Amino acid sequence: MRDFLAKKVKEIKPSGIRRFFDIAKEIEGAISLGVGEPDFDTPWHIREEAIYTLEQGKTVYTSNSGLKELRVEICNYMKRKLGLEYKWDTDVLVTVGGSEAIDAALRAMIEPGDEVIIPTPCYVSYEPCAILAGASVKTISLKNENEFRLTAKELEEAITPKSKILLMNFPNNPTGAIMEKKDLEEIAKVIIKHDLFVISDEIYSELSYFNDHTSIASIEGMKDRTLIINGFSKAYSMTGWRLGYACGPADLIKQMTKIHQFAIMCAPTTSQYAAVEALKNGDDDILNMKESYDERRRYVLHRLNEMGLPCFTPKGAFYVFPDIRGFGLSSDEFSIRLLNEEKVVVVPGNAFGESGEGFIRISYAYSLEDLKKALGRVESFIKKIK
Amino acid sequence: MRDFLAKKVKEIKPSGIRRFFDIAKEIEGAISLGVGEPDFDTPWHIREEAIYTLEQGKTVYTSNSGLKELRVEICNYMKRKLGLEYKWDTDVLVTVGGSEAIDAALRAMIEPGDEVIIPTPCYVSYEPCAILAGASVKTISLKNENEFRLTAKELEEAITPKSKILLMNFPNNPTGAIMEKKDLEEIAKVIIKHDLFVISDEIYSELSYFNDHTSIASIEGMKDRTLIINGFSKAYSMTGWRLGYACGPADLIKQMTKIHQFAIMCAPTTSQYAAVEALKNGDDDILNMKESYDERRRYVLHRLNEMGLPCFTPKGAFYVFPDIRGFGLSSDEFSIRLLNEEKVVVVPGNAFGESGEGFIRISYAYSLEDLKKALGRVESFIKKIK
Repeated sequence: MRDFLAKKVKEIKPSGIRRFFDIAKEIEGAISLGVGEPDFDTPWHIREEAIYTLEQGKTVYTSNSGLKELRVEICNYMKRKLGLEYKWDTDVLVTVGGSEAIDAALRAMIEPGDEVIIPTPCYVSYEPCAILAGASVKTISLKNENEFRLTAKELEEAITPKSKILLMNFPNNPTGAIMEKKDLEEIAKVIIKHDLFVISDEIYSELSYFNDHTSIASIEGMKDRTLIINGFSKAYSMTGWRLGYACGPADLIKQMTKIHQFAIMCAPTTSQYAAVEALKNGDDDILNMKESYDERRRYVLHRLNEMGLPCFTPKGAFYVFPDIRGFGLSSDEFSIRLLNEEKVVVVPGNAFGESGEGFIRISYAYSLEDLKKALGRVESFIKKIK
Repeated sequence: MRDFLAKKVKEIKPSGIRRFFDIAKEIEGAISLGVGEPDFDTPWHIREEAIYTLEQGKTVYTSNSGLKELRVEICNYMKRKLGLEYKWDTDVLVTVGGSEAIDAALRAMIEPGDEVIIPTPCYVSYEPCAILAGASVKTISLKNENEFRLTAKELEEAITPKSKILLMNFPNNPTGAIMEKKDLEEIAKVIIKHDLFVISDEIYSELSYFNDHTSIASIEGMKDRTLIINGFSKAYSMTGWRLGYACGPADLIKQMTKIHQFAIMCAPTTSQYAAVEALKNGDDDILNMKESYDERRRYVLHRLNEMGLPCFTPKGAFYVFPDIRGFGLSSDEFSIRLLNEEKVVVVPGNAFGESGEGFIRISYAYSLEDLKKALGRVESFIKKIK
């Protein structure tokens, strides 16, 4: 029997996070600061709406693009939060999490040989999805000294004649970096000059602790060349519901909808009803959770500073990305020894791209109690290896 | 600004079913026999389990492959229903409906230039998903006189040196055709001789009215070269839950899981818990619904026969596929005139491939009352155009 598997797919490595969690599972009594998932329950009124629609038997397919009511609420949200006008019937696609939206966007745009530029460290799915879509990938190594922001100069230097798409994520997983309006204005000039398209993963947009989040789509000249990806997992603590969306130019949404129609049909119906409730009545939940994350963020930074683990001040998402280069250990070595010797799970920075080497990702989507206990252990470890 | 869209994607036509429903929406008072979706509510005990887990806050990500408990139950089901042994930890992937499983399988296997053989008429997503994955598509026109079964001769004649995958669906949408064990044995010889792999979409497996469904994976020599696709939409009336699965060789499941991990993350959590309940305690629901579908099937065939609309006896799914070639109208003309003049929605057969031209698809996933009323109208139409 021949080998039926595609070479390109076999060559893609499974997620480095996953690999590390498999090791961690074996260690009894370990405290995890590893997972990038909110520790809050989905707010009750959102779950209640889901329950209500289940009781009513509202469990049939929705239209491929998603419930009209949900798409209308998404447009209201985009207007309210970002000042951006999208049309519910042509500019929005409801997807299975933000992940599916990114995958569908790449599939809709990539021609063989096209290049996708990805600033790293970044979420683990971007490069594999780009490769699956047939693109070649050009990474940009973001720098600690720039607070892991993307600079116009870095972007300009990375562009080649084959560059087509910039796929970026701010507030960022794993670094917690954000891009402010002035940063976005600088890179927008380069994007327009080189006629690039931007897939902007803004899944952490509600977790911006100093200023309100700014989308690159709101920078002049950018709306027609930007697809915004967002979803409910992080802002409303709705990970398992698998619900996200994309807003962008109608002609791109049309092609993505075709792919979504054939490969997925529609996003889960119960989750769509719940999401309508989240958008209508969930603003306070967001604020409460954000306040709590911010408290933890400040606590974690304070403790890292105290113990002498250098870390730039992350302004978004729920991660810190301390610099461990002073200890003479690789990210992998540091993380594995920390796990074995002190039973704390963090993720080695290189799981998010080579430019993450020398850093570790700590998620603070955990209770203050767990954070206190775990950071005490990190401190013991640091003292030992100093 | 350049055109950012991929040519291949732009060229794919949107679903012909959808196009027809858009026309139908405009006609007031129309009765639909068009949609391929069960008309039953999801059984209460399944919805109740979903509600219970929502109350408990079980809404976080599951493992990429799906809940262990669900995968174990899927393996029990495969053993109980088909006599097939799969390992829960290596041979099963839980997906967003059967659709995602088919898409992921094609992406995991297709190399540029590989050919996928698709017997038609068939479900509207197969050809687009194959093309999106980079395959070329070779269709086989199944024949009314063979009751729309795939014959060994037809398959043999379609194979070229580039053929890699046979993608088939029995019980079939749109024809209601099934393949019995002897039919599968004949084509298995050809498949093995030409070293093909089979993606077998068995989403209607529970709706087989004369004998229990036989999977091609249970034919000698076929298990290692077959991926079975199944799901909860049809058997348990759980369409909007978006839950399906694939069972097959571990090395293929591994590659599909990688794609699923990056593009989707995991299937919706609430739906997974509900699916465990469906597999554990849903056998009676299946029987009750099947009995009801069978009653309707017999009624529809009786009425078509009475009014002189020829139709082979479909033995599976919930469709009949009458032959309208005697009326001198194309499938499109017939369907549009039936809609405009008698306000009944059916789907023109050519929406499922060229070989469906000359036929219409009638879904009997509707109440007997609706079926009676609608078929009365069809009869009036037939009389008029005879």
